Amino acid sequence: MQDSCRVLFLPDNRYVMVPKGENLLKAAMDADVHVNASCGGSGSCGKCRVLVEEGEVEREPNPKLSEEEISQGYALACQTSVLSDLRVSIPIESRIGDRRIFERKEPEPAHGHLLSAADWEKRLPHWELNPSTRKIHLVLAEPTLDDNVSDAERVKRGLAVETGLRDVIIDYPVLQRLPNMLRQSDWDITVTVLDSGEELRAVRIEQGDTSGRQSAIAIDVGTTTISAELIDLQTGEVTARASDYNAQVAFGEDVITRIIYATRGTGLAKLQSVVVGTIWNLIKSLVEQAGIEYCDITHLVVSGNTTMTHLLLGLNPRYIREEPYIPSATFFPWIKCSDLGLRIAAGVYLYAVPCVASYVGGDIVAGMLASGIFNADKLTLYIDIGTNGEMVLGNREWMLSCSCSAGPAFEGGGVKHGMRATRGAIEQVRINKVNYEPMIITVGHRRPIGICGSGLIDALSEMFLTGIVNEKGKINTELPTDRVRATEGGAEYVLVRAEDSATRRDIVITEVDIDNLMRAKAAVYAGIEILLSSVDMDVSMIDELLIAGAFGRYLEVDKAVTIGLLPDIGYEKMKFVGNGSLLGAHLAALSKDMLNKAKDIAHQMTYLELSMNPAFMEHYLSALFFPHTNLEAFPSVRERLESYRNEQRLAGEAAVGGEVG
Amino acid sequence: MQDSCRVLFLPDNRYVMVPKGENLLKAAMDADVHVNASCGGSGSCGKCRVLVEEGEVEREPNPKLSEEEISQGYALACQTSVLSDLRVSIPIESRIGDRRIFERKEPEPAHGHLLSAADWEKRLPHWELNPSTRKIHLVLAEPTLDDNVSDAERVKRGLAVETGLRDVIIDYPVLQRLPNMLRQSDWDITVTVLDSGEELRAVRIEQGDTSGRQSAIAIDVGTTTISAELIDLQTGEVTARASDYNAQVAFGEDVITRIIYATRGTGLAKLQSVVVGTIWNLIKSLVEQAGIEYCDITHLVVSGNTTMTHLLLGLNPRYIREEPYIPSATFFPWIKCSDLGLRIAAGVYLYAVPCVASYVGGDIVAGMLASGIFNADKLTLYIDIGTNGEMVLGNREWMLSCSCSAGPAFEGGGVKHGMRATRGAIEQVRINKVNYEPMIITVGHRRPIGICGSGLIDALSEMFLTGIVNEKGKINTELPTDRVRATEGGAEYVLVRAEDSATRRDIVITEVDIDNLMRAKAAVYAGIEILLSSVDMDVSMIDELLIAGAFGRYLEVDKAVTIGLLPDIGYEKMKFVGNGSLLGAHLAALSKDMLNKAKDIAHQMTYLELSMNPAFMEHYLSALFFPHTNLEAFPSVRERLESYRNEQRLAGEAAVGGEVG
Repeated sequence: MQDSCRVLFLPDNRYVMVPKGENLLKAAMDADVHVNASCGGSGSCGKCRVLVEEGEVEREPNPKLSEEEISQGYALACQTSVLSDLRVSIPIESRIGDRRIFERKEPEPAHGHLLSAADWEKRLPHWELNPSTRKIHLVLAEPTLDDNVSDAERVKRGLAVETGLRDVIIDYPVLQRLPNMLRQSDWDITVTVLDSGEELRAVRIEQGDTSGRQSAIAIDVGTTTISAELIDLQTGEVTARASDYNAQVAFGEDVITRIIYATRGTGLAKLQSVVVGTIWNLIKSLVEQAGIEYCDITHLVVSGNTTMTHLLLGLNPRYIREEPYIPSATFFPWIKCSDLGLRIAAGVYLYAVPCVASYVGGDIVAGMLASGIFNADKLTLYIDIGTNGEMVLGNREWMLSCSCSAGPAFEGGGVKHGMRATRGAIEQVRINKVNYEPMIITVGHRRPIGICGSGLIDALSEMFLTGIVNEKGKINTELPTDRVRATEGGAEYVLVRAEDSATRRDIVITEVDIDNLMRAKAAVYAGIEILLSSVDMDVSMIDELLIAGAFGRYLEVDKAVTIGLLPDIGYEKMKFVGNGSLLGAHLAALSKDMLNKAKDIAHQMTYLELSMNPAFMEHYLSALFFPHTNLEAFPSVRERLESYRNEQRLAGEAAVGGEVG
Repeated sequence: MQDSCRVLFLPDNRYVMVPKGENLLKAAMDADVHVNASCGGSGSCGKCRVLVEEGEVEREPNPKLSEEEISQGYALACQTSVLSDLRVSIPIESRIGDRRIFERKEPEPAHGHLLSAADWEKRLPHWELNPSTRKIHLVLAEPTLDDNVSDAERVKRGLAVETGLRDVIIDYPVLQRLPNMLRQSDWDITVTVLDSGEELRAVRIEQGDTSGRQSAIAIDVGTTTISAELIDLQTGEVTARASDYNAQVAFGEDVITRIIYATRGTGLAKLQSVVVGTIWNLIKSLVEQAGIEYCDITHLVVSGNTTMTHLLLGLNPRYIREEPYIPSATFFPWIKCSDLGLRIAAGVYLYAVPCVASYVGGDIVAGMLASGIFNADKLTLYIDIGTNGEMVLGNREWMLSCSCSAGPAFEGGGVKHGMRATRGAIEQVRINKVNYEPMIITVGHRRPIGICGSGLIDALSEMFLTGIVNEKGKINTELPTDRVRATEGGAEYVLVRAEDSATRRDIVITEVDIDNLMRAKAAVYAGIEILLSSVDMDVSMIDELLIAGAFGRYLEVDKAVTIGLLPDIGYEKMKFVGNGSLLGAHLAALSKDMLNKAKDIAHQMTYLELSMNPAFMEHYLSALFFPHTNLEAFPSVRERLESYRNEQRLAGEAAVGGEVG
């Protein structure tokens, strides 16, 4: 049994290694092989017919394919899984004009690679499974007239004898339950002690020995998505995962609209209760998946951007938004979950990973922790692109951060058919360099509805390389395809025709969209340059580029480099962190040392406010080009452009020759 | 202007020094001069007529005294205040047969003396006005893009710069108000920081400079009475005082009945809310008296016995009552007043003085603190007599405590006409050694209703000295007075005849009453002996005897010694502490050092459980005598007994001689 399969595509004669079970359309895309695909992978158009000449596949039953065709080896690429090494040929009719998709599932990034568990071990300093809460089983001597210290002192004495922990403060709710609990349990109890860094606090008492049942929850509170993990604190293993949209989305897509909502009337309380509701549902799901009890949970660690952290903790976010952009707090004391309205079990406390500034939050600090930059010798650039592009440059000696307001373009905002990466969103795009026909993949095998961030970067990169768009972002309406057209609102490129879309309307990318995207990418790139220039460095000195965030996960770095969003430093230096925020929260949940390290990181990190940096505008204007006014800084892009132009010229000549011939 | 006046009584030719303004009947009693007084000091019987021969007095107008009599110098002793040195003669008609009273107001103990402010200075080690909370005025720099730390970090930075305080944790409610407060106040704020001993916590934020307005409240939570003081933390001065009955009295007079009530259904919550209600009313009164705002209060320190502390804090008191008598806790973390249901102002925390054991509570620890025993070279016995007699023996090296269940006799319980020291309670008694006629003073100038603790000790002592009661507690029914009589229920002495009482029934002391009182005093004395013998000492080695508690305040120590309640060690060694519990709470409210000293005291103090001490019963049985089976240990009592017997013999001979003559 093999885990990865070699798929050879004919007539292109290109092959690609894919994991067993991979969707065949995706394999074609990864191999840079064009297959028509226009129904979003729903299997309804039947245009992605391929011929499996050798090897084993599994076909979803589909009326577009007859028994006879199947016996001949035909398959619909979007409805077919790879089971062995394959030899696949693309019939002429499938080569132009259609598109497909899959379920969006943990994709392997196309270039660069996702950091693995083994990578973490190398990156992080030695740390131990030593969480902030600890369950301690005590069998206490029953009191007598000779030994008649109070129940609380007896428990403290037991803790001191058993573990050496001294001066433990017993929370009042625990004190209140103590006398009956001790006697009902026959003096056999388990005490949960929280080490807050400032003090030791007995936060829960249970009958008998429950010390083997202890879990923590790590949560990444994103503006759009909240992801949570249940971690068994005995083993350090993740025993369940869950994620869901942040229900605050109903009150505004981005942090700014949420801040505005929060500052009106009871808006803050509303937003807090809504996010607490989402977290509660996730915890419910984790507990059910893992088959544990709520009372097995002993603490929570959350990380989120500064605004999300404020809204969760009920802190006023108003001045995050107003110059000079001041958060209420950047360090947060441990807080009782019940004080947030989150009643999972008695005595569970929550820790929020500290923030650095209004626009460099706990998610970035957690990412710094998880990526081990604080421990690295290499000069590393950490970048998390969303509405804001947050980035940190540094190593074990220093860390410099900034945030550039990229605007919502990368999240589909300000883009005519932009949308979030939900079902039906176009997330991958290829455009044939000769006939300008697109090939698309949508999230969830659905007919296309719109375009999400990674789809936009893909599309833009392809449009630029194929010459649909020039370096200034203008569409070439002279091209010999009806997919490019001039309208009253400006030129546009038709990515999906009305008959193939779920909306029954054309899905297009307009010059206005391109303009917005160019400004967004320019802001990010200018941020990178400012960070570097403020320490007298340039992009060539970056040893490693870490890309974080859910967006990063689906990003194809070569496309991002092509449009000049990321610097052209060689793909081998680029790594995907995945959800760095969740990973950092996870580490802080497992280890007091790591939690303290997060505090250190937040303290150490310098924040550069771009809005007052005089050089920012200069860098920004230079970046308002594809890929950049200074093409010298993007050698691989230049090379690829040349290769595209060559191929197009050759194809043109062939076509002319054909005509002539 | 003189502060104390010399009052000479004729024909007895006795004088007494009294403070200017003293009631003349009280002066007579202090001088051991008999004046008839039977209406409880209400001025209605007119029997306490005296002739002021020299000096100045102030008479309350009274119809029982004509203008002519006044011009001749007559006065009703109970209605007259001493304004200068006096020479007063008692007319023959006032010498036998009546009684009087006053308002019960801070009496100067008759023997021994109340510790004064100057005494405290000598007794306590040097300490500074350095309370657990501190208001710190900060004028912060407004944030700019260059200086954009969070509001919380700005405040912390301000605290560090202004005061050197670091790592201050900001309470969430403060964090939540911080952003608007800072901006509304134009960055000019006052932060209240609580030093809990474990951590520094910013508990309140206010606009502008309020650092000059800071008060603490010290509260003695007694089983019967709750006393509170408002203390200006700028000056250390007490600016208001208030006290009231603990409203829990409605649910049981003593700790045992309250514990029983607390362990049923929602009893604990009920008792907690009731005592919180009393405290709230006292605070209201303090705030009104002193003309401050509620938000000027920054912390509370309470001291109470272990049960009262449990009930206030909502801790389960059940096992205090059941062998082996285990409290939930003896050390209590600072708690937010609002968590107790006491909503005086945001961010006010309460500290409960720690306890030692179930029956040696924070009131005793506070008393130890206030009396300075922890700092004394002298061997000191500290004693607080109520339902339980709590006592501590020690000095700066060691402290040994015990509690003996004296029963409610000293509080009027188990005594036929016993009552608490409320209006109409007989609190002082003299009995004429010749004709066995009593002279009484009641609380509040009222017709007598019953007898309170100090009245019982007085009466018992007088009955014993005059021979109405013998050393075994039996009443001599052979005496030539109808005040002594045998009834079906046993012999009794009529202290007040029906026509003089408020109840229109005789107020009597029965042999059963005497038996109960004897057992109570024997338990206390046995406790003292056990403490001493367990360190191989005896009463002669006591350098100082400190008497605490409201009861102690009204106790006449010579009477207590006469019945064998207190050891006969010389009155000069006896001092009244007054309300030691309140004094200790007061000190702990003023000074962190003193508060920590209270913790040290509670830690250091050894508790001796009498119920398991084999020697206790032996000591107890020996003490079931007036004053004790070992009369040698009570030399002053023996002397006084001899003197009484002599005088009685002489009076008898005179009477016989008179008859003969």
